[in-house]
Amino acid sequence: MGALKGRDLLSLADLTTEELQEILQLAAQLKAGTLKPKCEKILGLLFYKASTRTRVSFTTAMYQLGGQVLDLNPNVTQVGRGEPLSDTARVLDRYLDILAIRTFDQHDLEAFASYAHIPIINALTDLEHPCQVLADLQTMQESFNSLSGLTLAYMGDGNNMAHSLMLGCAMAGVNVRIASPQEYRPLDSIVQKAQAIANGKTEVIVTADPLLAIKDAQVVYTDVWASMGQEALAETRIPIFQPYQVSEVLLSHADKEAIVLHCLPAHRGEEITEAVIEGSQSRVWDQAENRMHAQKALLASLLGIA
Amino acid sequence: MGALKGRDLLSLADLTTEELQEILQLAAQLKAGTLKPKCEKILGLLFYKASTRTRVSFTTAMYQLGGQVLDLNPNVTQVGRGEPLSDTARVLDRYLDILAIRTFDQHDLEAFASYAHIPIINALTDLEHPCQVLADLQTMQESFNSLSGLTLAYMGDGNNMAHSLMLGCAMAGVNVRIASPQEYRPLDSIVQKAQAIANGKTEVIVTADPLLAIKDAQVVYTDVWASMGQEALAETRIPIFQPYQVSEVLLSHADKEAIVLHCLPAHRGEEITEAVIEGSQSRVWDQAENRMHAQKALLASLLGIA
Amino acid sequence: MGALKGRDLLSLADLTTEELQEILQLAAQLKAGTLKPKCEKILGLLFYKASTRTRVSFTTAMYQLGGQVLDLNPNVTQVGRGEPLSDTARVLDRYLDILAIRTFDQHDLEAFASYAHIPIINALTDLEHPCQVLADLQTMQESFNSLSGLTLAYMGDGNNMAHSLMLGCAMAGVNVRIASPQEYRPLDSIVQKAQAIANGKTEVIVTADPLLAIKDAQVVYTDVWASMGQEALAETRIPIFQPYQVSEVLLSHADKEAIVLHCLPAHRGEEITEAVIEGSQSRVWDQAENRMHAQKALLASLLGIA
Repeated sequence: MGALKGRDLLSLADLTTEELQEILQLAAQLKAGTLKPKCEKILGLLFYKASTRTRVSFTTAMYQLGGQVLDLNPNVTQVGRGEPLSDTARVLDRYLDILAIRTFDQHDLEAFASYAHIPIINALTDLEHPCQVLADLQTMQESFNSLSGLTLAYMGDGNNMAHSLMLGCAMAGVNVRIASPQEYRPLDSIVQKAQAIANGKTEVIVTADPLLAIKDAQVVYTDVWASMGQEALAETRIPIFQPYQVSEVLLSHADKEAIVLHCLPAHRGEEITEAVIEGSQSRVWDQAENRMHAQKALLASLLGIA
Repeated sequence: MGALKGRDLLSLADLTTEELQEILQLAAQLKAGTLKPKCEKILGLLFYKASTRTRVSFTTAMYQLGGQVLDLNPNVTQVGRGEPLSDTARVLDRYLDILAIRTFDQHDLEAFASYAHIPIINALTDLEHPCQVLADLQTMQESFNSLSGLTLAYMGDGNNMAHSLMLGCAMAGVNVRIASPQEYRPLDSIVQKAQAIANGKTEVIVTADPLLAIKDAQVVYTDVWASMGQEALAETRIPIFQPYQVSEVLLSHADKEAIVLHCLPAHRGEEITEAVIEGSQSRVWDQAENRMHAQKALLASLLGIA
Repeated sequence: MGALKGRDLLSLADLTTEELQEILQLAAQLKAGTLKPKCEKILGLLFYKASTRTRVSFTTAMYQLGGQVLDLNPNVTQVGRGEPLSDTARVLDRYLDILAIRTFDQHDLEAFASYAHIPIINALTDLEHPCQVLADLQTMQESFNSLSGLTLAYMGDGNNMAHSLMLGCAMAGVNVRIASPQEYRPLDSIVQKAQAIANGKTEVIVTADPLLAIKDAQVVYTDVWASMGQEALAETRIPIFQPYQVSEVLLSHADKEAIVLHCLPAHRGEEITEAVIEGSQSRVWDQAENRMHAQKALLASLLGIA
């Protein structure tokens, strides 16, 4: 793991396949309790958007590592109030050992990282959500033992989740099929990047047809139709996204042993039905728990303590 | 204390008399420093109402136990923003070791606890405030050595404080007299529950007559006339509650050795006079300090570390 | 350092010259890592004004000491919502080991300290900012090895920074020249206090002439022209303060080896130019880092652990 020490994780594509697999293996060991790395480092959380799972899972992960957490809520600091990002970055760099940032624009994240020497983690941008995908892959590995050759079908908005799933699956040898309405397809640039990583060995498919995507998939994944800040758009989106709802009917087209994942919060009756999220194929609570284990593995790797 | 490990404290009535006494004994040992249990657990605080003493006393208690605290301020999380309580509960259950909740409706607290395996603590609801009463009983024990046979007179609003005092006093062998205006009496269901616990061995009396209640009492207790969220009602309540003001005149009817308690914040000139709260019979600062010791005992018991 | 144990730091003038020098020496040892004092104490932060650097630097300092931090944000507590300051002070005194307060009126800080037995630290008032000056003096000492005989020129608003710099420089044997517009001079009472400390051995000068002040100075210091809460006044102040802008032209009149300090956040194009703050004479990032080391030294001294 030494190779990750001191590096940033701004995009899943920052990792090699081997590094991704090392993080997942470490996450499994941390969850099993067979490895208990400890440190006295300080993690900063700089979140420009609200967060429950990300904030809580990062905090508990760091606490369990013996470290401390400093929540830099922009509401109670001067961060973002006119001070240039480059100044904030250079100052926080002097105080903290590692920093997770949730912001809108991937470029802001990259600019911040360019000014700071400490490891910077992407805790969600409009472009990617790599930490969630680490937990997702861990959950898939727990269910199927091996990731290689699985097929994941993502239903709905071609957003940051779709982006990071494409990259992560391509790296992990998982076929990935994104089913999105035509106007809500993921960015071409990310699709191409994922296809380059897959290099023809696994599928990276974007389609408007939910049935085509879900056919025989072992992992069915969905996310809210309107992300934070887009709630006003939810009403108009419902009819457009309705065919992509993960219902018992749609799920019946997947592999019989398929598991269902959702990064939460879930809107029952919209992107997923009550019966499916509460059903026997749902792994959403394990998936949520794995945020903590996967991020603990990431923190330990970037801090060089495991 | 092993009997409390892993359990919830949603109501004081969740405890047996013996369990209550064990917590109070532990609290005294923790305050004296003769016992110093340590853990590496994580306490969550999920407070839907503002709080100073409860938040600070829980946090410092957990820190002194060697543990960590995660403040789940609903303003900066998605908790309470449309996500079903059952989802929030199941997710937090995976991250935390123990959780204190301050909310409005006791039923929400109970529903939350039904979805979580970790111990859930009632850190104030509209119905009860059990943690405050643990500190109150500890303060009474410090002043009188034994609780058995004491008489506590509560003056004012028949609110959550009155409820928990009735239950706690009944369990501890303390006579309890609640003096409230007719329209502000405590709930009959709680009065009956306290009387069932007292089982005829001690008094559980509700009266509109402050002099009847305070006569020869060793403990005189009051609380604000309008709780958080009811401030708009304060004006209209003043004339109704005036006869229940704990003044030097009213206090002169209590036992000469009586102590005065108040769970704070205090509104001088309303439910208590400056002379009384600052007088020689006031134990309010010790009582506030005991929040920390009593809650530390509770945390240690529920976590099974003492 | 034992002499500081248990004391408050409300004003730099609370320290003797020897005590100030001991804190600076300790700060240097902590930064170098030659001393690593540890404690299990709890620091409270009670900030009535927003803060990035102060909050983060105090928090990381305390974490590195092995202690815990409790952020008493008035927005989420009852502090300041009608409860008398004397009650808040007496309650927090029972829970915390040490408390840093950022507030407006120095008298509120002093009143708070009079009710609390634990050490109280001035983390900024309208009158003084002593913790910043500890970091400033540490930064100057790093650049010049010895403080004695240096000259510091402060350009701009005769505010709390000017006040604490006058006091700190006078105590440390540094000549201090404050250049402010006539209507924005520092308080006479502080000037006189600094002159009394200097006792004729070093200069304490207030002037409206920036060139007179900066002539041959080794340290050039500036601060924003409109502090927090005064932003509305910024527009009208710009023409008044323009002659005091620390530009390359103005800086050319200082000593050739002069360093430039700024307590941040900086408004480029107002009190300082981009070329100067990013130039080779700027020490502002070291200065920001030293907040952590200097405050760690202060905490360790007041807690009696170093």
